[in-house]
Amino acid sequence: MSRIYNFNAGPAALPVEVLVKAQSELVEYGKVGMSLMEMSHRSQDFQAVIDAAEANVRALMGVTDDYAVLFLQGGASLQFATIPMNLRRPGRSADYVNTGAWAGKAAKEAGLTGDVHIAWDGRAEDFKRAPKPCELNLSPDAEYVHICSNETIGGIRFAEFPNTDAPLIADMSSEIMSRAVDVNRFGMIYAGAQKNIGPSGLALVIIRKDLMERCPETVPYFLRYTTHANEGSMYNTPNTWGIYILRLVTDGMLEQGGIAAIEKADEEKAAALYSILDSSSFWTAVADKESRSIMNVVWRLPSEELEEKFVADAKKAGLVGLKGHRSVGGIRASIYNAVRRESVDAPIAFRKDFEAKNG
Amino acid sequence: MSRIYNFNAGPAALPVEVLVKAQSELVEYGKVGMSLMEMSHRSQDFQAVIDAAEANVRALMGVTDDYAVLFLQGGASLQFATIPMNLRRPGRSADYVNTGAWAGKAAKEAGLTGDVHIAWDGRAEDFKRAPKPCELNLSPDAEYVHICSNETIGGIRFAEFPNTDAPLIADMSSEIMSRAVDVNRFGMIYAGAQKNIGPSGLALVIIRKDLMERCPETVPYFLRYTTHANEGSMYNTPNTWGIYILRLVTDGMLEQGGIAAIEKADEEKAAALYSILDSSSFWTAVADKESRSIMNVVWRLPSEELEEKFVADAKKAGLVGLKGHRSVGGIRASIYNAVRRESVDAPIAFRKDFEAKNG
Repeated sequence: MSRIYNFNAGPAALPVEVLVKAQSELVEYGKVGMSLMEMSHRSQDFQAVIDAAEANVRALMGVTDDYAVLFLQGGASLQFATIPMNLRRPGRSADYVNTGAWAGKAAKEAGLTGDVHIAWDGRAEDFKRAPKPCELNLSPDAEYVHICSNETIGGIRFAEFPNTDAPLIADMSSEIMSRAVDVNRFGMIYAGAQKNIGPSGLALVIIRKDLMERCPETVPYFLRYTTHANEGSMYNTPNTWGIYILRLVTDGMLEQGGIAAIEKADEEKAAALYSILDSSSFWTAVADKESRSIMNVVWRLPSEELEEKFVADAKKAGLVGLKGHRSVGGIRASIYNAVRRESVDAPIAFRKDFEAKNG
Repeated sequence: MSRIYNFNAGPAALPVEVLVKAQSELVEYGKVGMSLMEMSHRSQDFQAVIDAAEANVRALMGVTDDYAVLFLQGGASLQFATIPMNLRRPGRSADYVNTGAWAGKAAKEAGLTGDVHIAWDGRAEDFKRAPKPCELNLSPDAEYVHICSNETIGGIRFAEFPNTDAPLIADMSSEIMSRAVDVNRFGMIYAGAQKNIGPSGLALVIIRKDLMERCPETVPYFLRYTTHANEGSMYNTPNTWGIYILRLVTDGMLEQGGIAAIEKADEEKAAALYSILDSSSFWTAVADKESRSIMNVVWRLPSEELEEKFVADAKKAGLVGLKGHRSVGGIRASIYNAVRRESVDAPIAFRKDFEAKNG
């Protein structure tokens, strides 16, 4: 195999063991004589897959029975639309914390169909940090408080989650299962799978069951959380392949020791990268220290020309996906769970070499 | 390989060549040094995949530039919700033709959020046939006319499509690309991919561009066709794996000679099955002759006990997926494009044997 070092922001690196396993059984899954992609979602064999996926999510994140675990389609972006439809009753408002591109998209979608109150806005500070809990200007009558716990583009995260009276809802797409989270502090957690836990085309939703019941009766059946919860995520045909891969990824995470072990490894990878950035004025980490993401490390070089050269030279050296998002520029290394420590050491060595030649 | 005969209704059989190809490059796609599932949807390599998928759809179905071809998520069921949101303006009505379970679901979803006029209802006839065009009671001011061109559960299809003043919209999930269709007669054609053209988690939408512009400004951005059309189906991360498989499936369909060749093969397969059903009173085809689906062949045996025995004996003989939908019972063989002629011959032989022993 000649696999490169993959720092894509999403879809992103998957554990090679998962790929090898999926490859080995792609044509014939288990003993059923067909591919998993050809299996009925109503078959016992697929039911075992989705049950295992749900059990893994519950075990890894400590999700209790008062929460539904849903495997949906449409990514986090569809959630941006369905959260206010389901959870912000007519005539009421919801609080949104604007920490960057993804939080802003969620707020924009919610603002189209009802009242949104921006409880904190990082725009004036170029989204260099997430707010401290005490900085939030929460509304007393908000239906919920929405945050993006880790901004993929800006490379920042909430070091600490706020305690809110209204249910806290978090888009955790780019950090799901990379840190220990007390699910009971949240009304809902959701994530596109394609960064940390699977392929694209699949969204994980963990939602407190009592909250789902808020949904007005005018909301289309398909767009209600209750519809999917009542049918075990099989109201319609789910993304069976995506759920299967998520199951394999989460199997591996349990074998690895669960979230505590993963968080430790992720923190060490991030610390190694940030230590290089902090060691020389040639590199400038973009995020404020206390808000630094351990998933998306974003930095600048002295000039855009050098940044372009860095990305191009890195690609030649087998390091791909390092170009910053087109909206902010610079360099970004996404070092999700499946990006191993040895993969992180490669850009560290490359960066030292690049600085020596160009610094 | 010990692949069984797969008559699943969806997810369903895929061409074995597609599975073998996908398997061969699952860990390392082309020369990019990673899996396709790990590739950025913004990469040139993935753009080439989605471009090829769209080109294949346009070539196979003769889709002209005044139609957008979209690769969405949420299956046909999400379309049931978004069609009225986008195409039935406030205060107006839409015509729905009720040919069975799926047409009924679409009408129910549309009826929740606005006016629906049932232009024909097959319920009193147990959904044994689709209407002739002249039987439809169309409204002069309907925003569109919705049909399900092939009912997976009832095993019926429109032998002939109606000419309508309002744009004709067809759910073709269970027969897409199995018959020659003049796309220009439709305002919109859509299909979940998991029956004829790919895995689950992917929906194909072909929509006349001028129709998309009807969408009220109160519709959430994510739920607008214009949003996805303006971004080439990449407003958010699409189901990249699903699009890749669809591309491989449609590559194969072009190699096979396109829709004309496929339709001929599909008609021959269906004729072979129906001829057995018609040859003996032991078997009773459920659909009226003129409405018989060439994708989903549904029949009854003299008793439910015999039906259960048939399904069980067939499974032992390596024929799976033959149980009728739980809502109607009986036997159903879904013989989509990827179910080869030799696979259809197996149940024919099995049925003859079963009848000899049990008839």
